[in-house]
Amino acid sequence: MASGSRSLVSSIRSIESANMKAALITVGDELLIGQVVNTNAAWIGNQCTLSGLELIRSVTVADSESSIHTELDASLNIADVVFITGGLGPTHDDITRESVASFFDRPLVLNSELLENIRSRFEKRGEDMPESNSRQAMVPRGFTTIVNPNGSAPGLYYEFGEDRETKRLFLTPGVPHEMKAMFLEQIWPLVVSPEMKGSIRTKTILLTGIGESSLARRLSATEELLDDNLTLAYLPGLNKVRLRLTAHTFRDQKATERMEKLDALVHDLVPTFIYGYDNDTLESAVVGRLIEAGKTIATAESCTGGLLSNSLTNVAGSSAVMMGGVVSYWNESKIRDLGVSTEALQRHGAVSEQTAAGMAQGIRSRFDVDLGVATTGIMGPGGGSEGKPVGTVWVALADATGVKTRLLAVGEDRIRNKERTVTIVLDMIRMWIS
Amino acid sequence: MASGSRSLVSSIRSIESANMKAALITVGDELLIGQVVNTNAAWIGNQCTLSGLELIRSVTVADSESSIHTELDASLNIADVVFITGGLGPTHDDITRESVASFFDRPLVLNSELLENIRSRFEKRGEDMPESNSRQAMVPRGFTTIVNPNGSAPGLYYEFGEDRETKRLFLTPGVPHEMKAMFLEQIWPLVVSPEMKGSIRTKTILLTGIGESSLARRLSATEELLDDNLTLAYLPGLNKVRLRLTAHTFRDQKATERMEKLDALVHDLVPTFIYGYDNDTLESAVVGRLIEAGKTIATAESCTGGLLSNSLTNVAGSSAVMMGGVVSYWNESKIRDLGVSTEALQRHGAVSEQTAAGMAQGIRSRFDVDLGVATTGIMGPGGGSEGKPVGTVWVALADATGVKTRLLAVGEDRIRNKERTVTIVLDMIRMWIS
Repeated sequence: MASGSRSLVSSIRSIESANMKAALITVGDELLIGQVVNTNAAWIGNQCTLSGLELIRSVTVADSESSIHTELDASLNIADVVFITGGLGPTHDDITRESVASFFDRPLVLNSELLENIRSRFEKRGEDMPESNSRQAMVPRGFTTIVNPNGSAPGLYYEFGEDRETKRLFLTPGVPHEMKAMFLEQIWPLVVSPEMKGSIRTKTILLTGIGESSLARRLSATEELLDDNLTLAYLPGLNKVRLRLTAHTFRDQKATERMEKLDALVHDLVPTFIYGYDNDTLESAVVGRLIEAGKTIATAESCTGGLLSNSLTNVAGSSAVMMGGVVSYWNESKIRDLGVSTEALQRHGAVSEQTAAGMAQGIRSRFDVDLGVATTGIMGPGGGSEGKPVGTVWVALADATGVKTRLLAVGEDRIRNKERTVTIVLDMIRMWIS
Repeated sequence: MASGSRSLVSSIRSIESANMKAALITVGDELLIGQVVNTNAAWIGNQCTLSGLELIRSVTVADSESSIHTELDASLNIADVVFITGGLGPTHDDITRESVASFFDRPLVLNSELLENIRSRFEKRGEDMPESNSRQAMVPRGFTTIVNPNGSAPGLYYEFGEDRETKRLFLTPGVPHEMKAMFLEQIWPLVVSPEMKGSIRTKTILLTGIGESSLARRLSATEELLDDNLTLAYLPGLNKVRLRLTAHTFRDQKATERMEKLDALVHDLVPTFIYGYDNDTLESAVVGRLIEAGKTIATAESCTGGLLSNSLTNVAGSSAVMMGGVVSYWNESKIRDLGVSTEALQRHGAVSEQTAAGMAQGIRSRFDVDLGVATTGIMGPGGGSEGKPVGTVWVALADATGVKTRLLAVGEDRIRNKERTVTIVLDMIRMWIS
């Protein structure tokens, strides 16, 4: 990038005070009608957190001037920094630039340097610039442009008010990689002061094998550690719960220290249910422990159909401990590949404790591993009976000392049933190692 | 579900006029700070569109009473129907119920029937109901409860105002499968009148094996069929593209007819790349065709680690054609279970055309199926070399007439590499059947 480009944003004053509040407006019909999931909002929210800005409101509106005016007014009322993404493109439905200009009653002025930049982008690709793109070189009077390293639509910056009352407004395109590059390379380095970074710290404790309500009950002693500057949130998932700890270190310099105490207390209260932190997955925790312990594993899957081995092999480095497996949808394969006895299958059926145990032992000896794991069940929607309704699952773990089995009743939905079963089995493997 | 449960929402009046405006408030710190991507907003936006409601605003706020009050006020000012999701759980940070009650100045009243329902949910699982869950049986006076078939937090409904000025408010939990079931089974059937349904019609054509740009070029002839009442959107995914056709039948009565013409034209222009419509998956299309053709299949997976068999077995009824498979991470298993020759492995390596072909033939004869499918490759991040960099994958299909192989270069990211490989292999199976 030319050094001249960078200077375009040098007039932005860095934000130094803590506890700045931010608001986000994402513009686009495609977001409202659900054609596109708004991943930009999550990304910007996460970036704000990392940078010490508190995002307090995120709103999505259609490409409509009056909606943009309404939300801009509401956002500027409650936030110090307002981000608007989307609607800066060249087509007729892109009206964010014009709407913001009319909100501040500013005329749009052609920026000829910008026009040349846009034109040369097209020339480099051997194309003529379509006339419609010249709109992207129009800048509301008093606004500063922000370089877009990945596209033709520049960003825009505007500030007004004095000192502590200063309001800052940023406009970026909605195309994710253009928006992200603009934030990372242009906006954050100039806006966020070093002190602000890390003014909000978060830590997420990952648990499985316990429900949200039981967990909350067991953690009731943590309540007295919490206040506005140290919070605890429960995020339930499918047979998993995430606990998010947030510390506002600007408002309370001891918040980080207190967060560590809170973390330690959670550990004391529910030690066995915690499998990891932040971006860990249950499968990465399990594979990591297997590698540490030097234990190998193989899988015999009927009802989970490969999801268990798929989860384990999603982890980089898993080939050191995961030797492989058999997916035995066909009963014949349970007998031939896994050595389940014909008698067990006939007397107890494919979904039975005996068959699960036989499969786990069979795969263990076939792949010559420390731990053989098996699943067999009825995932639905068909195949249930009165004695064995949909959701009936037998799982088994076989090691040198014998076989452990467990009966599960997972639910009605086929794909969720597979996921729940695998989560429970992974947790059983985790407990087996420790 | 008891019939009494369903009658709980019978007091909701159905919305009959067209062009009703809706607003959505999603509550949760985890959404604002980007820990969770707001897929609920996209899903509800899509559902509104399908039901003929125009979602004009979607806002996300923290678990904060004052923020909920502000957004509720703003939303009720501009919309006829307001949806609020999230914050109905049992923990201390769930404050949506209380905030909405205080907004309308309504006391919370214990609903003992509801309390019994919640208690019995826990009893069925052999647990005592934690005291904190009793909050979920508190209902703001004048509000109606909505049954939650999948969780303990009931939804809430409130309406006020007369006739055309009636405002409707719905509260649902934020857990996606609870929220979705509540919308599909409880809210929509009673709220949306038959005339409203279908005022906007959409159809999504699903394609694979062609990129977005090539597709757009091939479909340039469709442009003259499009206008404001009939639109076409490109939604690219991982080796897949979705084409969304939208017809506004209220504004143009012939829009549906025109959409069918557009669909037919797309079919004429790119017939081989289309694998399905709307909610079809590539795997369901493949399994459906296998069942129709009466052809059986088995899989031999090295690098995809079970993802291929998992995808196939995600389809209900797949056990009729999917006999099973082997995950052979361990080279020994490629030799013993799949009959790959030691010589092929030693001379050409595990990631080679010869090994892939041997695996496909081996699994075909082992499971006695019509089609044997194999994958072997280097998914990364480790394991690459100059001759075989990360992303090198060999796949093979073996049938009675011989073996077809194909070399892929998929990319750098392990999990995306597995997904891309499986998409390409599924498409090869689809082409094999036709």
